[in-house]
Amino acid sequence: MRVGICGLGTVGGGTFDVLTRNAQEISRRAGRSIEVTAVAVRSSKPQFDLSGVRVVSDIFAVADDPDIEVVVELIGGYDTARELVLRAIDNGKHIVTANKALIAVHGNEIFTRAREKGVMVGFEAAVAGGIPIIKAIREGLSANRIEWIAGIINGTGNFILSEMREKQRDFQEVLAEAQELGYAEADPTFDVEGIDAAHKLTILASIAFGIPLQFDRTYTEGISAISQLDVQYAEELGYRIKHLGITRRTDKGIQLRVHPTLIPEHCLIANVHGVMNAVLVHSDAVGSTLYYGPGAGAEPTASAVVADIIDVARNATVEPERRVPHLAFHPNTLSDAPVVGMEDITCGYYLRVQVEDRTGVLARISSVLGERGINIEGIIQKDVAASDADSGWVPVVLMTGEVTERDMNGAIQALEALPEVAGQIVRIRVETLDAI
Amino acid sequence: MRVGICGLGTVGGGTFDVLTRNAQEISRRAGRSIEVTAVAVRSSKPQFDLSGVRVVSDIFAVADDPDIEVVVELIGGYDTARELVLRAIDNGKHIVTANKALIAVHGNEIFTRAREKGVMVGFEAAVAGGIPIIKAIREGLSANRIEWIAGIINGTGNFILSEMREKQRDFQEVLAEAQELGYAEADPTFDVEGIDAAHKLTILASIAFGIPLQFDRTYTEGISAISQLDVQYAEELGYRIKHLGITRRTDKGIQLRVHPTLIPEHCLIANVHGVMNAVLVHSDAVGSTLYYGPGAGAEPTASAVVADIIDVARNATVEPERRVPHLAFHPNTLSDAPVVGMEDITCGYYLRVQVEDRTGVLARISSVLGERGINIEGIIQKDVAASDADSGWVPVVLMTGEVTERDMNGAIQALEALPEVAGQIVRIRVETLDAI
Repeated sequence: MRVGICGLGTVGGGTFDVLTRNAQEISRRAGRSIEVTAVAVRSSKPQFDLSGVRVVSDIFAVADDPDIEVVVELIGGYDTARELVLRAIDNGKHIVTANKALIAVHGNEIFTRAREKGVMVGFEAAVAGGIPIIKAIREGLSANRIEWIAGIINGTGNFILSEMREKQRDFQEVLAEAQELGYAEADPTFDVEGIDAAHKLTILASIAFGIPLQFDRTYTEGISAISQLDVQYAEELGYRIKHLGITRRTDKGIQLRVHPTLIPEHCLIANVHGVMNAVLVHSDAVGSTLYYGPGAGAEPTASAVVADIIDVARNATVEPERRVPHLAFHPNTLSDAPVVGMEDITCGYYLRVQVEDRTGVLARISSVLGERGINIEGIIQKDVAASDADSGWVPVVLMTGEVTERDMNGAIQALEALPEVAGQIVRIRVETLDAI
Repeated sequence: MRVGICGLGTVGGGTFDVLTRNAQEISRRAGRSIEVTAVAVRSSKPQFDLSGVRVVSDIFAVADDPDIEVVVELIGGYDTARELVLRAIDNGKHIVTANKALIAVHGNEIFTRAREKGVMVGFEAAVAGGIPIIKAIREGLSANRIEWIAGIINGTGNFILSEMREKQRDFQEVLAEAQELGYAEADPTFDVEGIDAAHKLTILASIAFGIPLQFDRTYTEGISAISQLDVQYAEELGYRIKHLGITRRTDKGIQLRVHPTLIPEHCLIANVHGVMNAVLVHSDAVGSTLYYGPGAGAEPTASAVVADIIDVARNATVEPERRVPHLAFHPNTLSDAPVVGMEDITCGYYLRVQVEDRTGVLARISSVLGERGINIEGIIQKDVAASDADSGWVPVVLMTGEVTERDMNGAIQALEALPEVAGQIVRIRVETLDAI
């Protein structure tokens, strides 16, 4: 099978390397050899042995190459990638991509076009890098009604939170280190503000529940506001702060949310450190299963890209309606379950409140929460250093029982209005994940 | 697609339940409905609504039923299951089975016959129950050269070791409890002597490395000799004892071994408790990935059985040579890499030696090990209770560096011959699993 690769950067280079190095192993599995016959590169001097490969600078030349069956899109970004993929599809080529942004935002359009043309679009590499999570959910768990998914699906964010906990360092300091190590981009917005994780969660939710891709309805909150103080308090309470993508089927519809989350420290997923990813899937028949591995990097991502290419090699001649549907469910059976607004989700909350250091304050706070039916399940009130105590204000940390975000918003507003409370209350959501 | 189920016990009942309950979800995914049209049951009164289902007592009637496309073998055991499966294959039926013993021992014959007839044989449920590990290795990691696999693949054994550690209880006591809870059979040999895990490891090794199934060459050691003392010493050294199946590609050939293993307590897989299973796969492109979930039980196993049925529904019309090969690699490309004898494996060792309580003994031991180039990397020498000390003998625990099993056997023989050493030395292998 003849493959064209657009983009020979980190992932493109890794893909070329893996296809070359493991050519024999791959053809023993696929039953046919897979050959890269064209690459489109920006730089004129790629560091690969490209003898026998057509090297072009125009990505669209690959999409138009009549010799090629599969176009591998590894240029990233939205618009050009979309144009390239649609053009290749129009030319009857199968697509493999690692581009989560493209799939999350333009996936519905791309899959519709691909169906019309009867071609496959593989995107295993778009979520959790080298972990074969798309295949696990779409095929491995196909007998199940999936209930919820919670995942650490951004390695940069997990690296930063891990370092903050292990080395008691501040967000900005660790971010700078992550940038030096190449784990974070010069502009880290996509990673630290949760946009990258939201792209991935959007995709996971669609293949889990059979809903269209709805990136713009995904609640997105990053980790840039997490302070060292909160990391330490969480630890003291027996929790870890992880940046999770969570999607859950409820009576009101589908939850789609990405935010920092306190989870019990004994959970397996609380012990996923550094740049590693992990996805926990809860479904009716099997219960909870967890998938762990590297979520980024040249070769881990290439592992997923190449697995998709092999899938195309196996299924290209299969009648399209017999193939695994792009979004796991056949398109005429997609669900119109609404996405639940954030105010309607229910969870526990961690609250850090700066209060006046005098008796009766806790009673005031308890009463504001109690009036709204919110239980306090844990509390930390610190002896503060003399210098802080001098100010007359001390931090109080509360763990609440489950409550809707709407009621919690009301409670926080009421608390912030108290004269005994100073400034903004820090709020982090808490999930027990059935203690898996 | 019409399915016949042979055996309506725990897994058979779960399979019937899942297919019925999730019929809509399943047909939305598979693009066609899946219907159980015949079941073979031993008891005359199955507790299911079997209206519209042909109920027979003869399993071979299902294998011969011209109406049926897929025969699901859930009767267990070797000989009758083999007969049933071969007869169904001869009748041109696809097979789905949860029977690890059958596949590990008769798989080569069954797959050969299935190839001749162009039918599929699904066995996802045979390894690690509800975890889609067969699919992950055969398809998800298909780009990789797999280097090694280490798995907790027997839930009963893991339950017993977890309880021994958490509650400081003895093997026999926990085994009795496991039997009461239904986690262990009345005859627990298959679970506690490692045979069940060896069946599963045999299968994992074949699909990882493309070698024929070689159950009789798998080194098999159970957990029945593990004492509470060793569980505690391991803990003290920062390790946990887990019963692992390990298969590894080496220059000398393929390692195939099942035995109790000390692994560092911070490894994710060291924190897999109770009846849960987990499989750690290390391969060249993606590095380490881990798959975790319930390894047994009615519905988790049914989840895997039904996923295989859906795979058959999708691939039944595909040309056989385009399907994923039974053992991951196309049969004419299977490897003849030898299975390495146990004496040729290399690992660290935990040794518990009963020694005379006097000076100079440790020097003697060190010298025996040193002569063979074996490093001591950790040591525990206990203050023993007066009653034990009175006997004049005390336990010494040693952790060694990496050494071949052959050299370790020689060292143990030499140590046991020392007058300062009493009785048999306890030896447990140690693996660091690259600290994943």
